[in-house]
Amino acid sequence: MASDDFRTLAIVGAGLIGSSFGLALKEAGFGGERLGVSSPAALDAAMRIGAISRAVSLEEAAARADLIYLAQPVARILETLRALGPLIRPGTLVTDAGSTKAVIVQTAAEYLPRGAFAGGHPMAGKEQRGAEAADASLFRRRPYVLTPDPAAPPPRLEEFKSWLARIGARVVEMTAAEHDTAVAFTSHLPQILSTALAETLQRQKNPDFERVFGPGLLDMTRLALSDPDLWASIFASNSAKILAALDLLLSALGDLHHTIQRNGDIAPLFQSAAAFASSIRKPDDETTS
Amino acid sequence: MASDDFRTLAIVGAGLIGSSFGLALKEAGFGGERLGVSSPAALDAAMRIGAISRAVSLEEAAARADLIYLAQPVARILETLRALGPLIRPGTLVTDAGSTKAVIVQTAAEYLPRGAFAGGHPMAGKEQRGAEAADASLFRRRPYVLTPDPAAPPPRLEEFKSWLARIGARVVEMTAAEHDTAVAFTSHLPQILSTALAETLQRQKNPDFERVFGPGLLDMTRLALSDPDLWASIFASNSAKILAALDLLLSALGDLHHTIQRNGDIAPLFQSAAAFASSIRKPDDETTS
Repeated sequence: MASDDFRTLAIVGAGLIGSSFGLALKEAGFGGERLGVSSPAALDAAMRIGAISRAVSLEEAAARADLIYLAQPVARILETLRALGPLIRPGTLVTDAGSTKAVIVQTAAEYLPRGAFAGGHPMAGKEQRGAEAADASLFRRRPYVLTPDPAAPPPRLEEFKSWLARIGARVVEMTAAEHDTAVAFTSHLPQILSTALAETLQRQKNPDFERVFGPGLLDMTRLALSDPDLWASIFASNSAKILAALDLLLSALGDLHHTIQRNGDIAPLFQSAAAFASSIRKPDDETTS
Repeated sequence: MASDDFRTLAIVGAGLIGSSFGLALKEAGFGGERLGVSSPAALDAAMRIGAISRAVSLEEAAARADLIYLAQPVARILETLRALGPLIRPGTLVTDAGSTKAVIVQTAAEYLPRGAFAGGHPMAGKEQRGAEAADASLFRRRPYVLTPDPAAPPPRLEEFKSWLARIGARVVEMTAAEHDTAVAFTSHLPQILSTALAETLQRQKNPDFERVFGPGLLDMTRLALSDPDLWASIFASNSAKILAALDLLLSALGDLHHTIQRNGDIAPLFQSAAAFASSIRKPDDETTS
């Protein structure tokens, strides 16, 4: 290893993503300390599964770590960035795993020194929450978006990227705005649909629903189990792009409604939709969650 | 086995469901002939995997089989029922695996003798099509809806139910109307949402989408790979109930839109939706498809 390798990692927010990152780095051969900053319950669980090696305060994390990994909901990441401002030492890389990037990147630029921060977003997850569900292979073969500021690239970004490669993630670089547009469609819209579908069925109070369903309904309602706190943050920090995506979805739904109503030909719509569904599936990529 | 056990099965439509039924019965110990009526290509594939033992015409199937299993799209099942009318022998049980039930049950009542027919719908499937994707365990632990006419119960229904139990299916009995209402919400609405979502993303032509997505988008677009022919039949035969369900979904989507727009509290909606998503999941039931 090069002499400037990260020696101490601090994970702020020891939930599913933070704890999975700690486990993944340990398995990939990271030999340094893995400090954890989180609630007492989360720290207990993360210690128990070996995701972190020691629980510390944010102050101690900032004083000792040369890689600080913020794995909290977006609104909490913003608070942590403000708190880190006066604490951060030269040469430390701060990165995050927040679900939207523009607001976070902007706040980091305001509170942290130039070159200290690179935004990130692992496109990985599952419906279970917390350190108990952590998984060292969570990032494997999944996209991991990085949104470094081209005007102030962090000196230690390459080192961080080499660790992402070692835990199996597929690094994708783009701007924060490009990321937020993409996830409005690929992540936020699917979440809204899954929740709206489950809520629609819940409202009917029809006991037959629990007796009569197939695997498709399980697929389509899995996201509806997501954490509302996490999503409140996401909606608040990307609402304009999300609402624009939702309007386009409503238009496609309207086309289907109209076609079904007049008993028209659904094949063109189905074929076009299937073309997209196929485009994101490659034989070695399809994994069930 | 009782002397009145089914001796000869005929499967009409040797696609995924028909071929899976043939394989499942064979594995469960059905020792009689398994005749197949389908297109030459489908029959070839079904013979190759052992789902059927011989290819015949519908006339020969009607002359020889005492259990006729219609596993075609809804519109084709209606045609087959009309054709079977003059061919059917006393004591034969005709059943189907069509995705809607009211139109099929009504057509069977019109063309077949009293007590010859029981409608059915296995709540099982996957995105692959055809006999090549057939799976003897497709029905295992899945609901299998039966909608027999209480005024004319088929004498051999219990015998059929005992075979369904042997292939691991969970038999659920209800009226055709109850079935069609339930599947409008639990199957047809999810299909429409998945297709509308995939179509919305396809229309953007944004190359970032294929680089930036997580497992949730795979879940939410899996149904978009479904066969348009199958779905044209389903929409045509259940459109009133489907459009009513879609209107309710649009209302829930509107509530989410409004809440996001005014940065309101999403927790009540998320919690209510999650309650439904949890209600259809039991530890031993959740299977990934």
